[in-house]
Amino acid sequence: MKALVYHGPGKKAVEDRAKPELQAPDDAIVKITKTTICGTDLHILKGDVATCAPGRILGHEGVGVIDSVGAGVTAFRPGDRVLISCISACGKCEYCRRSMYSHCTTGGLILGNTIDCTQAEYVRTPHADTSLYSIPPGADEEALVMLSDILPTSFECGVLNGKVEPGSTVAIVGAGPIGLAALLTPKFYSPAKIIVIDLDENRLEVARRLGATETVSSKDGKAVEKVKALTAGRGVDTAIEAVGIPLTFLLCQDLVAPGGIIANIGVHGTKVDLHLERLWSENIAITTRLVDTVSTPMLLKTVQSKKIDPKLLITHRFKLDKILDAYKTFGQAASTGALKVIIEA
Amino acid sequence: MKALVYHGPGKKAVEDRAKPELQAPDDAIVKITKTTICGTDLHILKGDVATCAPGRILGHEGVGVIDSVGAGVTAFRPGDRVLISCISACGKCEYCRRSMYSHCTTGGLILGNTIDCTQAEYVRTPHADTSLYSIPPGADEEALVMLSDILPTSFECGVLNGKVEPGSTVAIVGAGPIGLAALLTPKFYSPAKIIVIDLDENRLEVARRLGATETVSSKDGKAVEKVKALTAGRGVDTAIEAVGIPLTFLLCQDLVAPGGIIANIGVHGTKVDLHLERLWSENIAITTRLVDTVSTPMLLKTVQSKKIDPKLLITHRFKLDKILDAYKTFGQAASTGALKVIIEA
Amino acid sequence: MKALVYHGPGKKAVEDRAKPELQAPDDAIVKITKTTICGTDLHILKGDVATCAPGRILGHEGVGVIDSVGAGVTAFRPGDRVLISCISACGKCEYCRRSMYSHCTTGGLILGNTIDCTQAEYVRTPHADTSLYSIPPGADEEALVMLSDILPTSFECGVLNGKVEPGSTVAIVGAGPIGLAALLTPKFYSPAKIIVIDLDENRLEVARRLGATETVSSKDGKAVEKVKALTAGRGVDTAIEAVGIPLTFLLCQDLVAPGGIIANIGVHGTKVDLHLERLWSENIAITTRLVDTVSTPMLLKTVQSKKIDPKLLITHRFKLDKILDAYKTFGQAASTGALKVIIEA
Amino acid sequence: MKALVYHGPGKKAVEDRAKPELQAPDDAIVKITKTTICGTDLHILKGDVATCAPGRILGHEGVGVIDSVGAGVTAFRPGDRVLISCISACGKCEYCRRSMYSHCTTGGLILGNTIDCTQAEYVRTPHADTSLYSIPPGADEEALVMLSDILPTSFECGVLNGKVEPGSTVAIVGAGPIGLAALLTPKFYSPAKIIVIDLDENRLEVARRLGATETVSSKDGKAVEKVKALTAGRGVDTAIEAVGIPLTFLLCQDLVAPGGIIANIGVHGTKVDLHLERLWSENIAITTRLVDTVSTPMLLKTVQSKKIDPKLLITHRFKLDKILDAYKTFGQAASTGALKVIIEA
Repeated sequence: MKALVYHGPGKKAVEDRAKPELQAPDDAIVKITKTTICGTDLHILKGDVATCAPGRILGHEGVGVIDSVGAGVTAFRPGDRVLISCISACGKCEYCRRSMYSHCTTGGLILGNTIDCTQAEYVRTPHADTSLYSIPPGADEEALVMLSDILPTSFECGVLNGKVEPGSTVAIVGAGPIGLAALLTPKFYSPAKIIVIDLDENRLEVARRLGATETVSSKDGKAVEKVKALTAGRGVDTAIEAVGIPLTFLLCQDLVAPGGIIANIGVHGTKVDLHLERLWSENIAITTRLVDTVSTPMLLKTVQSKKIDPKLLITHRFKLDKILDAYKTFGQAASTGALKVIIEA
Repeated sequence: MKALVYHGPGKKAVEDRAKPELQAPDDAIVKITKTTICGTDLHILKGDVATCAPGRILGHEGVGVIDSVGAGVTAFRPGDRVLISCISACGKCEYCRRSMYSHCTTGGLILGNTIDCTQAEYVRTPHADTSLYSIPPGADEEALVMLSDILPTSFECGVLNGKVEPGSTVAIVGAGPIGLAALLTPKFYSPAKIIVIDLDENRLEVARRLGATETVSSKDGKAVEKVKALTAGRGVDTAIEAVGIPLTFLLCQDLVAPGGIIANIGVHGTKVDLHLERLWSENIAITTRLVDTVSTPMLLKTVQSKKIDPKLLITHRFKLDKILDAYKTFGQAASTGALKVIIEA
Repeated sequence: MKALVYHGPGKKAVEDRAKPELQAPDDAIVKITKTTICGTDLHILKGDVATCAPGRILGHEGVGVIDSVGAGVTAFRPGDRVLISCISACGKCEYCRRSMYSHCTTGGLILGNTIDCTQAEYVRTPHADTSLYSIPPGADEEALVMLSDILPTSFECGVLNGKVEPGSTVAIVGAGPIGLAALLTPKFYSPAKIIVIDLDENRLEVARRLGATETVSSKDGKAVEKVKALTAGRGVDTAIEAVGIPLTFLLCQDLVAPGGIIANIGVHGTKVDLHLERLWSENIAITTRLVDTVSTPMLLKTVQSKKIDPKLLITHRFKLDKILDAYKTFGQAASTGALKVIIEA
Repeated sequence: MKALVYHGPGKKAVEDRAKPELQAPDDAIVKITKTTICGTDLHILKGDVATCAPGRILGHEGVGVIDSVGAGVTAFRPGDRVLISCISACGKCEYCRRSMYSHCTTGGLILGNTIDCTQAEYVRTPHADTSLYSIPPGADEEALVMLSDILPTSFECGVLNGKVEPGSTVAIVGAGPIGLAALLTPKFYSPAKIIVIDLDENRLEVARRLGATETVSSKDGKAVEKVKALTAGRGVDTAIEAVGIPLTFLLCQDLVAPGGIIANIGVHGTKVDLHLERLWSENIAITTRLVDTVSTPMLLKTVQSKKIDPKLLITHRFKLDKILDAYKTFGQAASTGALKVIIEA
């Protein structure tokens, strides 16, 4: 089968690989129909992710059709259409019992990281019963590819952790794919304002189209003053960090109102400064999270009832044999305007 | 009347001052019977608190008897015995409506800071109806002095914010007065372990007496390994920071388990390092808080029903005219073993 | 001044009464600009409410302008435009401290019940600072009359107590004014379905206009089957009782899914049957509540940010001297189609 | 193997039965070491439980040793010592994902009800990975038998649903085994008072020994007045119904304070009266629940850390071949004083 293989920092290739086989009773083999590329894949390709060894098939998102299942799998049969979650969960360890699937002791973020994954014609998915989701009849499968990772990640780490509430104010710092995805779900809780902050005017334009009630350019270094002006001088109840660098995390500390929350989504590569000398008395919380995908069933319901349209995030489409072009387009987002690219297998 | 007056960095004196007078309809004048000294008073004396001007009478804790009340006060009458909260709350502003009394727009931490306070024979208390508490008949008034500040602070910022739960594990970093006070209330929620960490063996000895299930000396730089060994390698569910310096905040980051909480009590003077490059995916929360004293009624009930004995924190007693001795004893805690000192007016 | 006075069961009259005077330091006198009639007023007129003595001026909703304030009032000055809450709260008793203003020991539901109220040119409002709300500049005052009672009641007792969530299913039993008001706010939390059930096809038509995703006539006794068919056989996550009789409460018991909530809004006059012989193992909750009006500030924000339009509930308008006509129109809702009537003073 | 078999209403016998065999990949066969009898077993024997057919081996509690496991079981191996949960949970259906294991679509309360169970030498346990719990080394296995059902049931349905809090007041109505078990865990949350109410003075004596802070005899029909006197006239914050008849549920309605909760544990056979005509405005909640056993891991930790001693509930011990004597003793609790009886296989 065809697959996109990582060959060490900066190197990748489309290759022929053997079709994966069942290894454990709770495994399933899924024939991929659509997959996509994530910022994490780019990180891996740069060599930033030590756990990912050369030779690995990348990807951890997608939809497909069950090809075969292990003896212990009861929820799915060959031919079933399924959504693949980026998080594998055994459903039985201490963390899974606490609904913290991200830290499953035999799962978590393993697809496309420590085991081969979805940027291929077939993928082996461990813990299939608790890591795959049935696709409802009539569902738009492209939209559901967004539910493998980007939508639950932005919702759980940003909106849920950020405790967005009716009438509250939200700032999203960073209007890349994850920040824009985070823009789709605060409205579940009817905040009064959703302010998106970015350096790039094109991205702010997209943000306005996707539902930002206001946008603020941080180019002139005056984002804080502008957000304060929009919030009667108080700052925001929820500041969502969607970049992952010290500067944007600092901005969140300047934006958050007393009693507010900084909900981190960004993947950080270095330590950051935390100004406890002024925040110690501000009754704030800072949260971090690797997505648990506990919200996937609910997100499926809201997509089905048309509360949100995740397809708004899709900008480009490619066939699997053109996946190198897809990487190029996605990697040069500033010029291509790419958010999420669909790859059809 | 006699009063302890701040005269700029390093200077204080016992002086004769005019008895305070009612200034607003919701004021009360309280005749102090017992008060105490707080770490914040020492900070003020060092000149660390810019909002506190020379000439200020210090103190924000104590119990007393109502001397007179303004026209708008309905809950108290002269002669009533009352507990004075360190936080003044109007009960009507947006923050008070959200039970965030610490940020009351006309109150908060004003006693002994921006207005004169309790280290004197009389004190004027603004927003009396919502900032004083009736002392139940038969209550031990010395014990209740601990309910002005240290007990609600350690409970709300440490235990409540830290979401201590039955069967969970708690580490308290720092065994000074506030850390030891924080040791009294986790048992409300029956954690499996309460581990206290400090450099000073004498303080750890006190911690064991006050209910620590284990104590760990951090003198040898191996506190993290020792706590991990006590928690099956996982770390703690709740790490309570009770010092207020970068080093102890760093220790909390090393101690917290995935899914855990760092609950900050410490008053920090400088920024700290936050290691988001490893914590971003650990599903943790960091909380800060200036005490709201929302728990004061509940703490009163638990003291009355003998669930806790805050008198365990009292080590020394002085008359008001010996308050300079009390400051000396409290300021040299390492040698005197002082935790809280009672001053009788 | 003109006022609508209750004279015992079935009797009411518009009369000239003395303008009310300040009686306590926290009182305010408000000149009414707009008020309305509530189902409770009809109950009182029938003689159902023993606490309401003949001679009482009715009404507990409205907006107006501050005429004068007592010495203890600090949040308002003469000339301020205010919203009058149906619940008076002292802000200091044990219940107010727990945000359960409905049970304020010196307040609660007293306006138009145990003291004179808003269907007059002027009203005395006790506990003014914590029972009145500033009207933001530019606000539509007619819309805000709905925030005195019907909107917070339907939101707090129905939607908040009912824990409506993204993707969940909600049934509202009864499409009278309170049931239709309950229809405006579930969308704050993005449920997948809001099903309204009533006998009257005209009311169901209004329900569809106000946002019901489905409506079910209960005329043929098959409401349960129809709701089950709409919810994959499971029943609803939240069943809101908005009538107040045994039959509709029974219907809620038949509609609620395992793990669901029956949130009662209805004012009941008799006991009801509770089928614990089948519900004991169904993991459900039943909640009751007299509105606490804790949500009023948030509702004000959502009206200001145009998340909801409470004016949709207003069907008729009258001058104060025509209030008897207003009562007639409101009392014969089946034929007049009246929901809420505005009375201008 | 020996087993206690139900033969229709009023009939049971100890018989020789074939050892059970693995039927599904997630099954385990457990050799029972200790089991017990539950009130539900008595209900079944009376013929009250239609789902339980004659020929069924009874029991749904116990500890034992893994004899064999299906191909899909990964958490346990032959020889492992395990606690058997009364609830079987697949860990993957919609209800299990919501931690509502009691309503697992292929599990729930099936042991000893719709499939054979623990009052035998061996038992087949479906969904083994998510329905069995490892017994920690050194644990007291007799104590752990109480964790199969009675302790999580009384904790989850009574204490957790009842939201017991520091300083709050709790009434437990009924001092039979389940009511007394409910007495062991409120202290996890440090209520000020735990009041136990029963007709039987002997049971109240046991209640005092197990930790009731007060006991009230309901023999004279004055329980309500007595509880009001103990709670400053307010009633209790949490009323736990631990009997299951209309009279005791009525008592709970009379005992609960405004803002309080009635947490039902009792298995009811008939409908009850709910006095909404006075409770509609009292801001109360009524909860029902079939135990989900989500608290079992936490309860294991609290037993291990000696926060509670469930052995206090054990009054008698029998060998498996004397199980008919055990049933006699348990069935005549009024005269034998039996609470829980241990049966050793």
